[in-house]
Amino acid sequence: MIPGQLPTHMPAVVFDAGLKFISAYPVPAPPPGWALIRTLAAGICRTDLEIVKGYMGFSGILGHEFVGEVCACDQADWIGRRVTGEINAACGHCRFCREGMGRHCPERSVLGILNLDGCMAGYCMLPAANLHPIPNGMPTERAVFIEPLSAACEILDQVRLEGTEKIAVLGDGRLGILCAWVLASAAGDVTLVGRHPTKLQAARWRSLQTTTRLSDVTGADLVVEATGKPRGMLDAMKICRPRGIIVLKSTLASQGELNLAPVVINEITVIGSRCGLFKAGISQLEQHPDLPIDRLITATYPLESALRAFERACSSDVLKILLETR
Amino acid sequence: MIPGQLPTHMPAVVFDAGLKFISAYPVPAPPPGWALIRTLAAGICRTDLEIVKGYMGFSGILGHEFVGEVCACDQADWIGRRVTGEINAACGHCRFCREGMGRHCPERSVLGILNLDGCMAGYCMLPAANLHPIPNGMPTERAVFIEPLSAACEILDQVRLEGTEKIAVLGDGRLGILCAWVLASAAGDVTLVGRHPTKLQAARWRSLQTTTRLSDVTGADLVVEATGKPRGMLDAMKICRPRGIIVLKSTLASQGELNLAPVVINEITVIGSRCGLFKAGISQLEQHPDLPIDRLITATYPLESALRAFERACSSDVLKILLETR
Repeated sequence: MIPGQLPTHMPAVVFDAGLKFISAYPVPAPPPGWALIRTLAAGICRTDLEIVKGYMGFSGILGHEFVGEVCACDQADWIGRRVTGEINAACGHCRFCREGMGRHCPERSVLGILNLDGCMAGYCMLPAANLHPIPNGMPTERAVFIEPLSAACEILDQVRLEGTEKIAVLGDGRLGILCAWVLASAAGDVTLVGRHPTKLQAARWRSLQTTTRLSDVTGADLVVEATGKPRGMLDAMKICRPRGIIVLKSTLASQGELNLAPVVINEITVIGSRCGLFKAGISQLEQHPDLPIDRLITATYPLESALRAFERACSSDVLKILLETR
Repeated sequence: MIPGQLPTHMPAVVFDAGLKFISAYPVPAPPPGWALIRTLAAGICRTDLEIVKGYMGFSGILGHEFVGEVCACDQADWIGRRVTGEINAACGHCRFCREGMGRHCPERSVLGILNLDGCMAGYCMLPAANLHPIPNGMPTERAVFIEPLSAACEILDQVRLEGTEKIAVLGDGRLGILCAWVLASAAGDVTLVGRHPTKLQAARWRSLQTTTRLSDVTGADLVVEATGKPRGMLDAMKICRPRGIIVLKSTLASQGELNLAPVVINEITVIGSRCGLFKAGISQLEQHPDLPIDRLITATYPLESALRAFERACSSDVLKILLETR
């Protein structure tokens, strides 16, 4: 690291009881084995919006979806590379880490979610082991979707698909659409159920079907719940066949009344699904150059307009809002 | 059927807005392929107690755990045999029935639970195809546990155990203990977590460990939730390891506030588990003659004292309450 070349302070989007834009926040000092990354672009995710409502009790710099440029690292070959990074910083030697599941390490910190400042700032830091170089020629605003796309790919890691299943994805938000695309790349009968005709229109890709009527789907073998709404699980239980599978993607600050009796009666399997391995997301982007990621970007704001960007991200007609630092 | 030998009316325990004992209820007339069974003994299950609170919106004769004697059937070899019966009366030809899962047939009726009068009466009826003869020499008060024991065995059908897993069963009620016994017959490290030292004492069998402290179990690979209480799922999420399994057995009339975020964060698999195949329960009883089923019987009441029996079954120091008809 050449400290002289780095500023000591940076702009940052901080949640601490309230959401704040701070123009001069200290630039972090990466410990050995970690990289300091200059953020180029960051995405606002539903998890960020839930954190602002109290989810995880997090305070600090928000953000976990990013593309950046490594500007300091004790592994010199990383410096200058355009990267994104796995968001779970794990201990590296526990039972889960040894099994390649650092994202479940009990000692982990999580970028912008748990005990680690996030990427909505001039700089962020992650273990060098978490970094993935962005393939040459992949635009930054496409690569910033690697994190949520990998989370969508996690479903394929958890559920072995034959390709003939009847699949429904609930929720036409950004994550729902990414899940629907990933599933439509692996199975023939996938329906995205949403509430917003314009979002459903944006979601059309290959054989993916879309509808605003939940009743259009009955007896689904696999239901992915990505509504980000308390009612999502109720709808999922309604359309899942006996002995079918519900993959649960939404994490909510609070969920309200919920009776799981239908899960017992119909012997449904509910699988919680969170982060995925980035190699899956990167390969999804490389294998499907026609994946219309750009349709998901509703607007891009400069970092200093983050508060307006967050406000915009809450409105129901919005897909992905990006933040850019220049 | 020889109608002359059968009474036209019978005593019955009926739920219809309230719980009632009716001394002269019409004896049902079994359709072709069905058997009329004189009830010898019936068990009170938590599901019965939940139905009385409004679960399933059922009205009619209660009861689905029984041993009886076939007294009318168009398949003559059943007549006079001591039997129990699978409680789901299925259509026999739908997709689920064809796959041997009549217990998920969408057209099914369920003994004492859904559109079919139950067994807490002088007589009940079921399709002959549902019947299982009670092995000679197996006492009736042991055989009456075949239904709940099969429900416990369902776990082994749904989760492939290696035998080395760390397993916790939550709930020291009758179903929790049966689940703990079934699991202890298939795995070495099983702990039953309950609140009642006397029930836990009754549960001790082979290598099964018992405790009143939830904190004694951490990082369980498999948690069976059989508390019958809304808090059971919260406790299960607390002690289940990341990527572990929670088997959900409790069906509740209402469950209150529940946030499934821990299921998503820890990518837990939640498997709803209901009825099992009776051959599994029967073979469990036959293979383990030392299974101390008799310890589970707190008291036996005559059918006409059913209201007192139900009251008793609600109290927390009680395990199984049986009803007998003579």
